[in-house]
Amino acid sequence: MIPPYSRRDFLRIMGMGTASLALGPLLERCGQLRNSQRTPNIVVIFADDLGYGDIGVYGHPTINTPNIDRMAAEGQKWTNFYAAASVCTPSRAALLTGRLPIRNGMCSDENRVLFPDSTGGLPADEVTIAEALKTQGYATACIGKWHLGHLPSYLPTRHGFDYFYGIPYSNDMDDVNGWNYQSFFDPKIEYWNVPLMQNEEIIERPADQMTITKRYTEEAVRFIQEHKRQPFFLYLAHSMPHVPLFASESFQGKSKRGLYGDVIEEIDWGVGQIIASLHKEGLAENTLVVFTSDNGPWLLFKDHGGSAGLLRDGKGTTWEGGVREPALFWWPGTIQPGVVNDMGSTLDLFSTVCNLTGAAIPTDRTLDSMDLRPALFNSGSSPRQIMFFYRGEQIYAVRRGPFKAHFITQPAYEVDPERTYHDPPLLYNLNHDPSEQYDIAGEHPDIIADIVREVDRHKANLVAVEDQLAVRIEANGQ
Amino acid sequence: MIPPYSRRDFLRIMGMGTASLALGPLLERCGQLRNSQRTPNIVVIFADDLGYGDIGVYGHPTINTPNIDRMAAEGQKWTNFYAAASVCTPSRAALLTGRLPIRNGMCSDENRVLFPDSTGGLPADEVTIAEALKTQGYATACIGKWHLGHLPSYLPTRHGFDYFYGIPYSNDMDDVNGWNYQSFFDPKIEYWNVPLMQNEEIIERPADQMTITKRYTEEAVRFIQEHKRQPFFLYLAHSMPHVPLFASESFQGKSKRGLYGDVIEEIDWGVGQIIASLHKEGLAENTLVVFTSDNGPWLLFKDHGGSAGLLRDGKGTTWEGGVREPALFWWPGTIQPGVVNDMGSTLDLFSTVCNLTGAAIPTDRTLDSMDLRPALFNSGSSPRQIMFFYRGEQIYAVRRGPFKAHFITQPAYEVDPERTYHDPPLLYNLNHDPSEQYDIAGEHPDIIADIVREVDRHKANLVAVEDQLAVRIEANGQ
Repeated sequence: MIPPYSRRDFLRIMGMGTASLALGPLLERCGQLRNSQRTPNIVVIFADDLGYGDIGVYGHPTINTPNIDRMAAEGQKWTNFYAAASVCTPSRAALLTGRLPIRNGMCSDENRVLFPDSTGGLPADEVTIAEALKTQGYATACIGKWHLGHLPSYLPTRHGFDYFYGIPYSNDMDDVNGWNYQSFFDPKIEYWNVPLMQNEEIIERPADQMTITKRYTEEAVRFIQEHKRQPFFLYLAHSMPHVPLFASESFQGKSKRGLYGDVIEEIDWGVGQIIASLHKEGLAENTLVVFTSDNGPWLLFKDHGGSAGLLRDGKGTTWEGGVREPALFWWPGTIQPGVVNDMGSTLDLFSTVCNLTGAAIPTDRTLDSMDLRPALFNSGSSPRQIMFFYRGEQIYAVRRGPFKAHFITQPAYEVDPERTYHDPPLLYNLNHDPSEQYDIAGEHPDIIADIVREVDRHKANLVAVEDQLAVRIEANGQ
Repeated sequence: MIPPYSRRDFLRIMGMGTASLALGPLLERCGQLRNSQRTPNIVVIFADDLGYGDIGVYGHPTINTPNIDRMAAEGQKWTNFYAAASVCTPSRAALLTGRLPIRNGMCSDENRVLFPDSTGGLPADEVTIAEALKTQGYATACIGKWHLGHLPSYLPTRHGFDYFYGIPYSNDMDDVNGWNYQSFFDPKIEYWNVPLMQNEEIIERPADQMTITKRYTEEAVRFIQEHKRQPFFLYLAHSMPHVPLFASESFQGKSKRGLYGDVIEEIDWGVGQIIASLHKEGLAENTLVVFTSDNGPWLLFKDHGGSAGLLRDGKGTTWEGGVREPALFWWPGTIQPGVVNDMGSTLDLFSTVCNLTGAAIPTDRTLDSMDLRPALFNSGSSPRQIMFFYRGEQIYAVRRGPFKAHFITQPAYEVDPERTYHDPPLLYNLNHDPSEQYDIAGEHPDIIADIVREVDRHKANLVAVEDQLAVRIEANGQ
């Protein structure tokens, strides 16, 4: 059949230049146009214990991350982006629910995270991003570390994920010889008898951690390939670079930074694979990819832990190094390249993703999640003006605008850690002094008073809930 | 006259696609082809006291440097690049001569830099990059801070520069009220009676430091415009961000980082102006632009000083924060974009530039300069495997490959600073441990022995010279 217009006319009508004479690109473009009419795919790549300074474009001198750097060059690099807690379990609960862990029992003064002998988990009535997106017809997968309850009723498959492939808690748990600090510096797979699960079955134990980053990546790419015709939410929560560190053979010794660098460079490779598969499937222009981490570097492990760059301290503390993270938002054609200095948080992914996809935001509970779309789309600023930094059930610090007040400080992981109470609180201007070196409390009683009022308002809004991290099987205390 | 071939054929012959039908771009490209046949222009933009962590692409969260970041994206970002000293005068002498200051008297145990009452300077028989390039017909300009001797016989005009516009020493000198620490935090132009010179004349005193970055930039752009038909060497040594900090009105309050950030963002603007003028004049593809700094951040000045990012300590010390600097090499079409982890130094600009331009390298003296072209052009690695870190006339530390040994450490600027001698030296693997946290001397006596042998070899090669920094007018001791 001869069309009623010439091929050149057809191309002109389609708004394409005469340079594009081959039909392949045309069809590809039509495919993309069709894709851009559906709600976007969401990919969250979540590292574990990655420091603010561990990525090339965030200043690391010997860890090379060309794929993540390219995400930054093509997308938005956020420089004041916070995890919602300084350790794994509460941080992950907050990301998936848009709520501070104090609201759902996922933080505790006695146990900072869930352990293999814990019997609690993310309560069933919490709404995760995955559950919200299921209402919009999304395919959902959790690949990687879960750490929100490993008993059957708490697994990802009970929280809105169609598919789970990963380790249900941290990769340093189930240690067969008791916790041995030295073993982390010459790690062997058999030291940690952690299970690898597929949906609700254990498929390998101990998990071969050497290939875990590679296999998570392959699972992620396969999930993308299989869902190119249905909107999807992929939550890829790497087990690395949490100690013990393991990298695939092809990455061992590759980086100049030692094993820690090898591990990051394999994660970076994984980011490249995911971006490439989005391009290959014609989905890049219809997919938001977010890269960030759950908390800062575990400095206790020296060169097996990461670097918070210019930020103070690391994982386990409410200093900036414990909570501020690299954060990249990539969505070619929709998010314009740039650097964003506004505040944002993993807490905000919930509201942002719901608003991007048309999913309903629960109205029967308090959320701590803000819609970052104005900043993502350059139509305004981030609405986030405040962050409450909890350690367990206590507020240790609060950031409001550029100012951060520390009411309590405490070393990260001492055996018998001592709290120091500050009255007045320590006060830092993080824009001027990101390393929290110069206390200016004496100059700004008004700012402190404002922050104290915000704390009072926040606390008045809290409701007592069951501590999910308190319940452990006594025989197996760890 | 009708040419013997059609316009389309002509374009095809010239290797241009049919998309380029206008004649303008063709002529411009011919111009660039012509330019690329001459030896390249060299532009060195040299900041003062800029920290490793003070640039966006080196990890600063609230200083926005889109122009420098673009240099990094389009060129090479070096992450192990060293100034040759941790304070101004010796660092600058080394950059311009390719020789460690110990070889020409430009370092001293008693006076760390030249002061307004100093009577010494860079010896006349030293060969600067400017002098080397004069032999190749280059136009040469020194715009900005000199600090290698302000008596007439030591000025830039006596060291190979056709033109000088700038302040002959640091912008915190000639302080009219004696050195007053507090005055730096509320700086007024009249507190520092520093002269602004043009060639050998003082044209303004005190120099209006508020507009100094802007005027240096304008002079640099004018110099580029006036020399588009002759190869040129532009050494633009900003007085900023050395304290006292000053920014133009249009930059005051612009950055989120306070006055320090305003100052860096004005320098970044200046970088953008220079790159734009190179593009405008059709010189971009025939010009190597280098951006770096003379030493690390002056931490004594708190938030008026910069940040060394993840590196330890700052200006005045031989810790990494005192000597490692951001370094970008930009030459579109010749230098491919990338990150270089190899070692390099400002010392190496001399040999690299001589080899790029055909200038002869002096053979009657010892140079400490290495040709970085293999790394710049991706044909090999940087030849630099060792750096000697002097403080005054003493070797405090040595880096060889990834390992750095500290034989002496000392606080940066204590009133009565105490040296600590280390035997064995402290030893760090900088690739694994860039923050110099984990001493591994006990594990590597062999590496220490190698480094000690290198020090002996180096010292055997030294010749006693006159201390140029020792001579000061007694009446005006500072």
